[in-house]
Amino acid sequence: MSVSARAGIVVTGTEVLTGRIQDRNGPWIADRLLELGVDLAHITICRDRPADIEAQLRFLADQRVDLIVTTGGLGPTADDMTVEVVARFFGRELILDVELEDRIAAILKSLMRRNPVFDLGNFDSIRAANRKQAMIPAGSQVIDPVGTAPGLVVAGTPVVMVLPGPPRELQPMWHKAIQTSAAQEAIAGRTTYRQETIRMFGLPESGLAETLRAAEQAIPGFDALEITTCLRRGEIEMVTRYEPDAAEVYTQLTRQLRDRHGRQVFSEDGSRVDDLVAQLLGGRRIATAESCTAGMLAARLTDRPGSSDYMAGGVVAYSNEAKAHLLGVDEALIETHGAVSEPVADAMAAGALRRFDADTAVAITGIAGPGGGTADKPVGTVCFTVLLSGNAPASQSLRLPGNRSDIRERSTTVAMHLLRRALSDSPA
Amino acid sequence: MSVSARAGIVVTGTEVLTGRIQDRNGPWIADRLLELGVDLAHITICRDRPADIEAQLRFLADQRVDLIVTTGGLGPTADDMTVEVVARFFGRELILDVELEDRIAAILKSLMRRNPVFDLGNFDSIRAANRKQAMIPAGSQVIDPVGTAPGLVVAGTPVVMVLPGPPRELQPMWHKAIQTSAAQEAIAGRTTYRQETIRMFGLPESGLAETLRAAEQAIPGFDALEITTCLRRGEIEMVTRYEPDAAEVYTQLTRQLRDRHGRQVFSEDGSRVDDLVAQLLGGRRIATAESCTAGMLAARLTDRPGSSDYMAGGVVAYSNEAKAHLLGVDEALIETHGAVSEPVADAMAAGALRRFDADTAVAITGIAGPGGGTADKPVGTVCFTVLLSGNAPASQSLRLPGNRSDIRERSTTVAMHLLRRALSDSPA
Repeated sequence: MSVSARAGIVVTGTEVLTGRIQDRNGPWIADRLLELGVDLAHITICRDRPADIEAQLRFLADQRVDLIVTTGGLGPTADDMTVEVVARFFGRELILDVELEDRIAAILKSLMRRNPVFDLGNFDSIRAANRKQAMIPAGSQVIDPVGTAPGLVVAGTPVVMVLPGPPRELQPMWHKAIQTSAAQEAIAGRTTYRQETIRMFGLPESGLAETLRAAEQAIPGFDALEITTCLRRGEIEMVTRYEPDAAEVYTQLTRQLRDRHGRQVFSEDGSRVDDLVAQLLGGRRIATAESCTAGMLAARLTDRPGSSDYMAGGVVAYSNEAKAHLLGVDEALIETHGAVSEPVADAMAAGALRRFDADTAVAITGIAGPGGGTADKPVGTVCFTVLLSGNAPASQSLRLPGNRSDIRERSTTVAMHLLRRALSDSPA
Repeated sequence: MSVSARAGIVVTGTEVLTGRIQDRNGPWIADRLLELGVDLAHITICRDRPADIEAQLRFLADQRVDLIVTTGGLGPTADDMTVEVVARFFGRELILDVELEDRIAAILKSLMRRNPVFDLGNFDSIRAANRKQAMIPAGSQVIDPVGTAPGLVVAGTPVVMVLPGPPRELQPMWHKAIQTSAAQEAIAGRTTYRQETIRMFGLPESGLAETLRAAEQAIPGFDALEITTCLRRGEIEMVTRYEPDAAEVYTQLTRQLRDRHGRQVFSEDGSRVDDLVAQLLGGRRIATAESCTAGMLAARLTDRPGSSDYMAGGVVAYSNEAKAHLLGVDEALIETHGAVSEPVADAMAAGALRRFDADTAVAITGIAGPGGGTADKPVGTVCFTVLLSGNAPASQSLRLPGNRSDIRERSTTVAMHLLRRALSDSPA
């Protein structure tokens, strides 16, 4: 694949490196670069430690990236050193930008007026602390602060874009920074890509691997496709990136996938099972009856705005009494078959349909563990029923892998897919 | 702080680099290294692209880390190449571990037997695909797979630990890998630290910042403490790391925190509100009634093993009909005060207590948005009631910030804290 503009991201901050704070900037910038057709090669994370930051800048320069974006380390406190390190990296001196210092001072004044926590008395000392933020490497272009920290675009090889850590500051500043002549030159060689996502359910990753190997043999120009597959909660996500002239190659691949795994492929346009279920539920009223997932399915069905159009409600029937009293499950049924059984799942679904006056119901009952497993019903055994009014209940029992939370998580995903299949098979 | 064992983490995976999947392994391993007193210098992320992975390994070796941990790229698909690259990095050849191949085959067989949703089609081709996973660099130590991918510890300078991407596989395998002689030698120089976590709720981060500034002035030897604070869902987590001889300094800090923020500090031993609530619920029976959170609180209360001892169940009363029919909320009450009001929250809690024959109930009703807000009840308005049988209901209305999912998430956390306070104030 011809790639002629490469970038790297340097994320600084002890709280990010140590995982106290999840980095949201790397992924966000990665998306922007992807949209631009710039190849992101590396993201590197380190503490606010000058030697480490400089080492990462040199590493990325050695990797011949055209653009480096740094995030974080622009605050007024002594441990924020990114600008100083970038200046040293280029061998340039730091110069006080007086006009910028005034802009920062103005921002601070209004901040302090709004924020009682600051003590308006020692404004000069605060301003002094912030003078540091007005010291910039010679010949760099300033990006106006959204908070108090200005950003920088430093021309050179590679071009270095310096942005603050807080996402709400970084994001608007990125859009200005990428428009600067220096940044535009850096990414001039970018290629436009297409990116397509196919989602599959109920297919082992190795089964897909086999199909891809076969496709590699059968389809000329196959390596024009950059394919990544990712297994998540029983779903496989396959993302393919290619240049426009390889579109026909991709079409052939999708054809082979459909031939081999038609029933497992549930989305070719990137839409998720949640999107599909939401569409299929249009004009319907759904109710849930959950035991081991204890509300996770109901919560997932109401993730999106407007879900009140189809979501009636649900019962978390964690105890057998609750199954009996709230869902009207016959206690004899529980005694005969056990609480984790398809007959009980059927009865739970029927109860939910009735109690919520719904036309669609899903029931889940299972053993999430670690306790409660038996020889014939080990931990991970989960029974599902999807009931559409006027149809016979569709039940299925599975044994799901993983620990308690994996099993609960995976159960909600399985339920979403059983619901999707039932709704697509039945007339609206 | 004297540190004599350094580590780096290489996270591979296009889906992680491009932000389609959030990396959970880097932060998790960072925590483990922190506990061990190993200094984590760099986390680097790249695609499953051999040249990039090898460049990152060389970079970390040049930075003289003692241990490199790689995550991901161990799957059967052709785009998983970490082991191959690690072998090249050390200049060693890949050898088929026949006995390991059989173990992987056995795992696959049982996986497929357990999953009717998986099409059982040609097992041999699948086994062939997985042969790749049994190819290991000469002289490396195998860590048994939790999924299908084995891990490796490769002795050398630095020592390289190769672990799979899925957290539920990586985490147990880490604990074995770190015990290997090679890994132990790599981290032999580590310093032992203490790490303490204090959690606060209902305190603005700037308030804590003030207190820390004051403590820095007042407490001698304060900079022996490495403090990182993190605001999450209305809770502040403060993690302090120090060498044993600074224990007295830390004690003084905790004293000042208690003096200033006694009511907000709810945990000094790292335990979470979920742990405290679980303890306080011992011997009780709890039921939930949820509208906008739609089961998220019930799901959270049942996160942990053994929760069936106290969890009776819950109702997701998303529609007004459900509030009336399943929880017996008087429809006149809804008409008079609106579905999002303290009287309705009280009635929902009372209904849940009655329906599930419980002694403890929590109700949540609110406007998660983006629609449904009004002038006097804007999006983010959420009403909570905690009801302990024999006590008057404790109700509270809040206006929570953020988008739909922030508001739902934050609401469950607020409910957990209201529950904690109610249960701690009342005699068991």
